Amino acid sequence: MANRADIILSICPPHDAESLARQISELDFRGLFVDCNAIAPQKSKKLSAFFETGRYVDGAIIGGPAWQKESGTRLYLSGSTADEIVGLFKQSPLLTRIISHDISDASALKMAFAAYTKGSIALLASILSVSESYGVREALAEQWGSNFTQQTHQRLIATAVKGWRFEAEMHEIADTFLQAELPDGFHRAAADIYARMTEFKDKPPQNISQLLEALRSTA
Amino acid sequence: MANRADIILSICPPHDAESLARQISELDFRGLFVDCNAIAPQKSKKLSAFFETGRYVDGAIIGGPAWQKESGTRLYLSGSTADEIVGLFKQSPLLTRIISHDISDASALKMAFAAYTKGSIALLASILSVSESYGVREALAEQWGSNFTQQTHQRLIATAVKGWRFEAEMHEIADTFLQAELPDGFHRAAADIYARMTEFKDKPPQNISQLLEALRSTA
Repeated sequence: MANRADIILSICPPHDAESLARQISELDFRGLFVDCNAIAPQKSKKLSAFFETGRYVDGAIIGGPAWQKESGTRLYLSGSTADEIVGLFKQSPLLTRIISHDISDASALKMAFAAYTKGSIALLASILSVSESYGVREALAEQWGSNFTQQTHQRLIATAVKGWRFEAEMHEIADTFLQAELPDGFHRAAADIYARMTEFKDKPPQNISQLLEALRSTA
Repeated sequence: MANRADIILSICPPHDAESLARQISELDFRGLFVDCNAIAPQKSKKLSAFFETGRYVDGAIIGGPAWQKESGTRLYLSGSTADEIVGLFKQSPLLTRIISHDISDASALKMAFAAYTKGSIALLASILSVSESYGVREALAEQWGSNFTQQTHQRLIATAVKGWRFEAEMHEIADTFLQAELPDGFHRAAADIYARMTEFKDKPPQNISQLLEALRSTA
């Protein structure tokens, strides 16, 4: 496949991104390799070195499945040959945006964006768990108000099934912070929280109590 | 003062709470001591031991200055003699709520609540800083949208002047998590972020760039 393809898009859980890029680079692949994974900018630079100059594009997807243009899902791209990728998606519901010609800028943006979406939900999960441990979960729900509490429960339950693949992504984000001399603790903690959700990979939690039960068991 | 008072409410930065409670307990104080500070539940238990049984009430304030009832600011109380405090505020704009008769429940609630309000803003501060470091702050602002971006800038600038007293509170929250076998990293990181805001104690940042500049200098 690698011999016949002009372009390969790598879209996989972040802990497999490096080995996949290495495997492709070791085959007789002469095309353009686009890493679309949630990896730290410094890792994207490292992967780019597996390929000849201009044969690696840094990509990052922000948003859910792009069933239609209105989904607003966007493939961010950076690297000197990023414009070659834009044309592929002209007629598709996936939006594209070139950030710059510098390898790693698309990854940096993905890390910064996911740092909040996935970091804040892990934070909320840990807070519900702590309030349960101390017996003040009802009082917290009352102080939060029912809208925020219900919303949080729903977001958490929807996230739990994907937790298994967020653990590695949280470490990529933590590495991104560390490199910039900012604290990496938010996302090391988030990685720990997502690790505790692994049991929900193929069977979503039935309710918030079942999820909180899982969070209380340290890995 | 301690000799003449029936009730003493301790409201101070959390890093002074223990020494203040100890000082009062060593005086000839026969009244009721109410610790209203943002401290870990286990620390509240520790402070309660300085006083005779029933002479310590665990308190926690959630909300801003209570100029009027509509502010919704609430003093949560726990402990066997918590009801003696409720009467004091009947005619005042400060709302009260007894959570339980167990010392430390009011503190546990405060920790869980502040874990999100102050934890999430520290997370956002670190994310803006990381995006600045990697040169993708504008791209992030565009992805976030101008509402969320402007709101975040405003929250951050308003929070920066109070950062100096949040550092200790974040460690109290981290201790609360650790005790429940949950990761303490979110709030150790938040403490680090607030420590970097100390210079704004008496002079708020002029704009978001000045604030982000301060965040980039490690303590």
